[in-house]
Amino acid sequence: MFKTVRGMRDLLPKEAERMRYVEQVSRKISKFYGYDEIITPVLESYELLAAKTSEEIRERMYTFKDLGGRKVAMRPEFTASIARLVASKLKNEPRPMRLFSVGSLYRYDEPQYGRFREFWQANFELFGSNRPEADAEILILTNNILKDLGLKDYRFKIGHTGILREILTQENISEEKQNKIRQLVDKKLWLEALDVTREAGVSQKCQDVLTRLFETKDENALRVLSQVREFVQNYETAVEAVDNLCKIIELIKESGVQLDMIVEAGFARGLEYYTGMIFEVYIPGLDIALGGGGRYDKLIELFGGEPIPAVGVAQGIDRIVLALSKQQIFYEYKKDRSVAVISIDDKCRAKALELSAVLRKAGFLVEVAVMGRSIRSALSDVNRRNVAYVVIVGPKELEENKVVLRNMKQETQRTVYLIDLAKEILTGSN
Amino acid sequence: MFKTVRGMRDLLPKEAERMRYVEQVSRKISKFYGYDEIITPVLESYELLAAKTSEEIRERMYTFKDLGGRKVAMRPEFTASIARLVASKLKNEPRPMRLFSVGSLYRYDEPQYGRFREFWQANFELFGSNRPEADAEILILTNNILKDLGLKDYRFKIGHTGILREILTQENISEEKQNKIRQLVDKKLWLEALDVTREAGVSQKCQDVLTRLFETKDENALRVLSQVREFVQNYETAVEAVDNLCKIIELIKESGVQLDMIVEAGFARGLEYYTGMIFEVYIPGLDIALGGGGRYDKLIELFGGEPIPAVGVAQGIDRIVLALSKQQIFYEYKKDRSVAVISIDDKCRAKALELSAVLRKAGFLVEVAVMGRSIRSALSDVNRRNVAYVVIVGPKELEENKVVLRNMKQETQRTVYLIDLAKEILTGSN
Repeated sequence: MFKTVRGMRDLLPKEAERMRYVEQVSRKISKFYGYDEIITPVLESYELLAAKTSEEIRERMYTFKDLGGRKVAMRPEFTASIARLVASKLKNEPRPMRLFSVGSLYRYDEPQYGRFREFWQANFELFGSNRPEADAEILILTNNILKDLGLKDYRFKIGHTGILREILTQENISEEKQNKIRQLVDKKLWLEALDVTREAGVSQKCQDVLTRLFETKDENALRVLSQVREFVQNYETAVEAVDNLCKIIELIKESGVQLDMIVEAGFARGLEYYTGMIFEVYIPGLDIALGGGGRYDKLIELFGGEPIPAVGVAQGIDRIVLALSKQQIFYEYKKDRSVAVISIDDKCRAKALELSAVLRKAGFLVEVAVMGRSIRSALSDVNRRNVAYVVIVGPKELEENKVVLRNMKQETQRTVYLIDLAKEILTGSN
Repeated sequence: MFKTVRGMRDLLPKEAERMRYVEQVSRKISKFYGYDEIITPVLESYELLAAKTSEEIRERMYTFKDLGGRKVAMRPEFTASIARLVASKLKNEPRPMRLFSVGSLYRYDEPQYGRFREFWQANFELFGSNRPEADAEILILTNNILKDLGLKDYRFKIGHTGILREILTQENISEEKQNKIRQLVDKKLWLEALDVTREAGVSQKCQDVLTRLFETKDENALRVLSQVREFVQNYETAVEAVDNLCKIIELIKESGVQLDMIVEAGFARGLEYYTGMIFEVYIPGLDIALGGGGRYDKLIELFGGEPIPAVGVAQGIDRIVLALSKQQIFYEYKKDRSVAVISIDDKCRAKALELSAVLRKAGFLVEVAVMGRSIRSALSDVNRRNVAYVVIVGPKELEENKVVLRNMKQETQRTVYLIDLAKEILTGSN
């Protein structure tokens, strides 16, 4: 018997519906915030995808040669494709440019809870503005999606890459070493990170600052940032980073949006291309981020385009579905508008099809009986499917332009005129 | 500069929107007809995908070994994946089983007008019923999608694989030869097809019947089928096929659905697994089918499952988008509900964000100014984006709890109370 390839999944109806629901809510929010959707291919040149991604991701790409001998790979993230577009076909579009994309991504990771080799993301990117209101917008829209989905107790973990980076830069740590340190910090290996700074020859004073940085996190965002501002005061550009993050958080607060957040002064996301505010979203009891993002002002340059500031977020659709399931928040398409139409004999089949069309136009979800079953057997099937109403089309009733309408929940039935059918169902459902 | 891989496309906002619109309408119809969506992976085992597809498709698959050494391929069609599911995880689900799937497919074809190496399909499959109302449902829902999309002048080309197959079987033509003949007929190479039958030793009388079969097509479906019934009368099971097709078409007509169709008695779809009614949809001036399908009662057996009758359709989303563009039918998300919110200075930014949230809740699509531009420059940008309304948030007006509301189309503006903003925009738009 054939199976799915390891790490790949089938999403059966219930799961598929949740997954599409999260996708639709993301798309709705994209329209409400003015983000235009673009669709890029799953298959890109290896060269493009490998250009600026981390080695960790690069090694786990599905890479191969196509029949024309081109080295290609299945995208492991959207970043490279979007950057390619912004650096080429979209380079002359007016700014700001707001882009939305959604689709499947591929990484040869070890399959585990919440992690698959094929997974889905919804991406929002705002190009052209280096101002805090742009950062605030990305945070607010992320919050908007999760709120609309009904997710509870989620929290933003927020930081700013500039704080750590500017300290290390002022201490003359090389870019390469900085990346190494950032990766260690991302994995919360602070002692190891400090070791690297020590080897690189930073002063004890700086190490004390870094230690405090790694230790500092608090739910009172503005208070913690004023503390951080104090102990990094000797690093002028690091102070600017703190001020930038303050401004973003103040804007959100003043605009009246309630964002449950924890500021982590030493928070670093693994990817090298972030340049400013960074964030991830978590719920209690689930140790993987539902989404994350930040500012990456230098990315498009790296792909050969003109410099353009950018801030964005990638929402993990699978992970949000997982979080919703964990919190028992289920979305199901309204079943109270579902109707099954059954014909008593083959002579009534065309009438059953006709009535189905009428009911669909009136907004009902209609399943027509197509098995040629007896009424009894058809009704027991309908019961199993959790359908709200059944219309039974029989020759005797049809002579009087009527059909039988059965309310499955109340277990009642009555004869109604064809012309009143949709109305009668609606009345019956009140 | 990086480019897309040959045969792959970027869909920029307008095209992406059309593509998603066709997808959404298909999904809406799936709900209205009781089809449950399932999502299967893009990557499947080569063995599965190669098992029952035609050699033509098999040779053009994107095939490779994953990092674990498994021979995998990107799906060239949905059939094998759905069959895998129905033969395994879904095998005990109650019948009928209605399944919907939508996604991207991959074939290494020569790129040409309307044909790409990555393309999208929406698939509907109805399992469990061998009755004509099931065939009718698939035709009716295909029509419903195209009608809802506003497509004009489309036409169904309809046939039945049983007519040709039963004649050849009664003449003792081997399965293999039949496939060869069917492929020639599919390419309209009728003379070549007749040559093969001659070589296989069929009588002159049978060849005359086949010649008439290939020649017979007509828009009056029932008339043409009664002609065909007559000249295939010596092939009893072929007559049954004709009667089956008649029944399907009668049901549709009697149910009041207007289906513009042409019946082609000698119509054959290339794929070997069809067993009954087959169809494709075309519009004038576009020589590629927008979609097609039919009955395939033996498919699930081929994949190792229990026998189960099935009928379905695959809609080419890209091709429908192409057809809509060709007919100048454009869908665009309502722009008359679009609003830009501009703050006069940085002190008003939080208020601008707050008002944006209020307007979105009221159903408006809101772009917030994030570039810190002067009002003049911001307005000229808004003009270029074709936004209907602008809200200007300034300190002077805010003191009186007011903002400036500008109607871009009418080039008028007035000062309105914050509390009335949404209502004022709605009033102004009437």
